[in-house]
Amino acid sequence: MEALVFADGKLVFTRSHPEPRLGEDEVLVKVELAGICSTDLEIIKGYMDFEGVLGHEFVGTVVKGPAKFKGKRVVGEINCVCGRCDMCQSGLSNHCRRREVVGIEGRDGAFAEYVAIPERNVHCLPDTVNNESAIFVEPVASAIQIGQQVPLEHRDKVIVVGDGRLGLLAVQVLAGKGAKGNVVLLGRHEDKIIFAEKRGIQGIILDDMLIKSEWDVVVDCSGSAAGFATACRLTRPRGTLVLKSTWVADQPVDLTTLVINEIKLIGSRCGPFPQAINSLAAEKVITNGLITSRFKLSQGVEAMERARDSRQIKVVLEMNA
Amino acid sequence: MEALVFADGKLVFTRSHPEPRLGEDEVLVKVELAGICSTDLEIIKGYMDFEGVLGHEFVGTVVKGPAKFKGKRVVGEINCVCGRCDMCQSGLSNHCRRREVVGIEGRDGAFAEYVAIPERNVHCLPDTVNNESAIFVEPVASAIQIGQQVPLEHRDKVIVVGDGRLGLLAVQVLAGKGAKGNVVLLGRHEDKIIFAEKRGIQGIILDDMLIKSEWDVVVDCSGSAAGFATACRLTRPRGTLVLKSTWVADQPVDLTTLVINEIKLIGSRCGPFPQAINSLAAEKVITNGLITSRFKLSQGVEAMERARDSRQIKVVLEMNA
Repeated sequence: MEALVFADGKLVFTRSHPEPRLGEDEVLVKVELAGICSTDLEIIKGYMDFEGVLGHEFVGTVVKGPAKFKGKRVVGEINCVCGRCDMCQSGLSNHCRRREVVGIEGRDGAFAEYVAIPERNVHCLPDTVNNESAIFVEPVASAIQIGQQVPLEHRDKVIVVGDGRLGLLAVQVLAGKGAKGNVVLLGRHEDKIIFAEKRGIQGIILDDMLIKSEWDVVVDCSGSAAGFATACRLTRPRGTLVLKSTWVADQPVDLTTLVINEIKLIGSRCGPFPQAINSLAAEKVITNGLITSRFKLSQGVEAMERARDSRQIKVVLEMNA
Repeated sequence: MEALVFADGKLVFTRSHPEPRLGEDEVLVKVELAGICSTDLEIIKGYMDFEGVLGHEFVGTVVKGPAKFKGKRVVGEINCVCGRCDMCQSGLSNHCRRREVVGIEGRDGAFAEYVAIPERNVHCLPDTVNNESAIFVEPVASAIQIGQQVPLEHRDKVIVVGDGRLGLLAVQVLAGKGAKGNVVLLGRHEDKIIFAEKRGIQGIILDDMLIKSEWDVVVDCSGSAAGFATACRLTRPRGTLVLKSTWVADQPVDLTTLVINEIKLIGSRCGPFPQAINSLAAEKVITNGLITSRFKLSQGVEAMERARDSRQIKVVLEMNA
């Protein structure tokens, strides 16, 4: 089948990748649309030592599997878990000790004609969530996870650092949870700031910002060491800094502000798919305008290159184009 | 007066440093004994951009001040605060926006014949706490702060990373709070591990340790990027990592483990002096054997050099020697 594969330090498009072999209780999904995420960009820099088919944000149709799923349009959770280890047994199955993660760790991803996922990971989509919205289920779930880990008070001053793919979703999710006027987006791109402002969320361009340690909750979606440093300096003493982004460690990071200001830093990863689907269906999170480029799967290498351009928001791959 | 001064990138002993001028509501303390802390060692590498008299762990006698303090043997809190800013008003005066910190930020420290501190920072010592114990009040308070920020459950598995000055105090404080058998010290030095084991605390030499993400609470007292990396890897998914140490950022730090394992990192700094004095008086924390070298103030430069040797524990300066 066609697939975008990372191996031996190289990203290549191939037409001869073997189709996934289904494990026990797994379904085969014919992928229709998939989104490129910063994690994909980090993987091809060496993050996670992953080799195989990239891609973990996708929507498609089940072509093999139990009757209840067959022919259904679905999205899939990315953590494939054992159900038996200490983490699974204690309700933290996203942290399964033996997990594989679709397109990230030990398991082929969705930048391909077909992807295999465990039945338990499958979520059917309502008609109100089209494919163009559905590829955002995974990152919206990841944004919802913030609120699950950090209870937001109505009076909390919240700032999201980074106006990229994840930042634009996170700021909408957080504005929906707290008092809208208290949630601010900090970014570098006027058009992205305008996207937030159209949704009633205050946006600030980094160069215009006076960096003061006065924010109760800071969410770092910047994906860079420089963004993280800014996020540290914005967090008030005893405040909370949510770290969403991962990046290859290639430069010094100063953690003294965390100690001096006794900051609580919360690492945050994947979130609940059902709530993300509901948020998109109810248009609590708007994704119109976030897809800035579309490519065929065969143009995957070029698409990944495009996604590096910080003026882009979401770059997608169309499997049937 | 005699003082150990850091200025223009150089540490020098001088006999002609001006005596402190007392501000409003301040007392003058004749210093008797002072301890060298890792923060002092970082400052002369450039940390905090501090210039002036070093030293913030000290014991002495009040020679100028109100009658209730005059002639009393005292220790002093190091944060000198305004009492009026948003932090002070919200009960977080250690985070005062306009604070000076004795020997660390904007105010001369205690490696001198005399040091000035605000009256509100003064704590009188009971006779049961001798000078050799009293210099540990500040770091013991800092260790007690951990338990104030992180509620420890009896069943929590706790590990302290780093068998230096602070680690040997922190492990005692934490063992006193939780079930003793669940608190472990991880270090590099056999004699320091034996110090912990004599107090009924399990110690492990780093080379003998299988690093697994299975500890509920990890306390990083290592003072190094390498120690921090180990601490991250020891923390279980959704576990808590307490960061006590500050060091000059001079090498890359990988924060991805914090995100992937959704770790809660808590920066932790100064703690409550009254509880620290009580702990030392009640011998809940034992400091016998922790002072490994004594120097005259005039030998201060050599003393600081000695304190760098990781085989040392606490190096002290005697002002009247």
